[in-house]
Amino acid sequence: MSKKPLILVTNDDGINAPGIRTLIGIMNSIGDVVVVAPDSPQSGMGHAITVDATLYVNKVQVDDGPQKEYRCSGTPADCVKLAIRELLDRKPDICVSGINHGSNSSINVIYSGTMSAAVEAGIEGIPSIGFSLLDYSWDANFEASKSFVKRITEEVLENKPDTGIILNVNIPNLPKDDIKGIKVCRQGKGNWVEEFDKRTNPMGKDYYWLSGKFVDLDNGDDTDTNALENGYISVVPVQFDLTAYKTLETIKTWNFK
Amino acid sequence: MSKKPLILVTNDDGINAPGIRTLIGIMNSIGDVVVVAPDSPQSGMGHAITVDATLYVNKVQVDDGPQKEYRCSGTPADCVKLAIRELLDRKPDICVSGINHGSNSSINVIYSGTMSAAVEAGIEGIPSIGFSLLDYSWDANFEASKSFVKRITEEVLENKPDTGIILNVNIPNLPKDDIKGIKVCRQGKGNWVEEFDKRTNPMGKDYYWLSGKFVDLDNGDDTDTNALENGYISVVPVQFDLTAYKTLETIKTWNFK
Repeated sequence: MSKKPLILVTNDDGINAPGIRTLIGIMNSIGDVVVVAPDSPQSGMGHAITVDATLYVNKVQVDDGPQKEYRCSGTPADCVKLAIRELLDRKPDICVSGINHGSNSSINVIYSGTMSAAVEAGIEGIPSIGFSLLDYSWDANFEASKSFVKRITEEVLENKPDTGIILNVNIPNLPKDDIKGIKVCRQGKGNWVEEFDKRTNPMGKDYYWLSGKFVDLDNGDDTDTNALENGYISVVPVQFDLTAYKTLETIKTWNFK
Repeated sequence: MSKKPLILVTNDDGINAPGIRTLIGIMNSIGDVVVVAPDSPQSGMGHAITVDATLYVNKVQVDDGPQKEYRCSGTPADCVKLAIRELLDRKPDICVSGINHGSNSSINVIYSGTMSAAVEAGIEGIPSIGFSLLDYSWDANFEASKSFVKRITEEVLENKPDTGIILNVNIPNLPKDDIKGIKVCRQGKGNWVEEFDKRTNPMGKDYYWLSGKFVDLDNGDDTDTNALENGYISVVPVQFDLTAYKTLETIKTWNFK
């Protein structure tokens, strides 16, 4: 039996995206790689799962390499569930998701399919990391990311974060020499100010396209947004207990009787 | 101008679901109601948003009452974004989502379209509540929920939780007299143990249905799961900063250099 770590690789941009192809290449240098990824882009899917439709899985080989690959008709979270329950013969040592084409820093984490896959693995007690590069384009350049992604993955394999902790890693879109290092930070406060672009279709019916811009609402110097702006890679430890503990006691004093 | 509160109502089971029709009826007795809800069921959608497709909105009147109603082709989070940016002429005083047909307690909160809508309103600084009844059936009986939903909504309107706090309210499926009261609690630890039901389609191709059972992994008496099991309505204050603050300092000691 191989002593190399078993690495589950997934993403939300789809199995053919340059980001996941880069990630697979890096992971092949660390361990035994099994890829289970969506067959088409799933961006903005949040933590969706397929509860009312069938899931198809196909064994494929997208490019050369020792990795085993499956493409799946479901969401990123579906991919992780299927991998663990059906496709892998043992629990993976780590799950890596990405590299996403575009930021998942600040509030973006809650809309992120990349992070939902990583969180799903975290729920299963598997150390996991979501990687994102701050370039939304399909032909984003992942060269500068490679050594950092490898280093962070090896560090997680060695240190094993507490159960249920997932790392949200965002990488600035800079040449390697301009990346200043890696910063562990908190999720910055921010929000999207949407502008719905209202149009009329050829049948005379109105419809909308969602667009908008991100607004940073946090001037702390310990946030992911701040780290990225200053040329650092941000690492935010994330958890899935959403309880607002600070508010619990206040709300207990309300009069619900 | 009306002094009554402006109430935004949405859900993830779709605008025709008995749960939202009940919720609209209750809210009509509290304030001015605008409904913006998906045109079809969106369960399991997590915090999905529509980034790569068009959104349609239709003004409708599903049943009698003073409420204004819009059905939308998007996800629950889309509905809230559209309501705030395009459909409402002022910021709502509260957003209520549900009443969901089925539990959103424990880990279910992260897969929940009902809660994603409420969280989306929370991100916009609007006090908001997601309501769920522990009965997955379409013809669930919401009678016993009514007075509790009204009371909790009025309490939130009066007390205004801290900005960014959303209440996750789950209601046991019991006759009114058997409901023991309302408990403010934390999110219980739990997980779904999936069983993928593997079948073969008429063309000979394998596919899967996701099924499984919920496993309670928490023996605390301060959890939502525990409250519900003991006949109480659970109220968990939820927030969208996912940072695992307890782990931040530990991970800062790792050697990322």
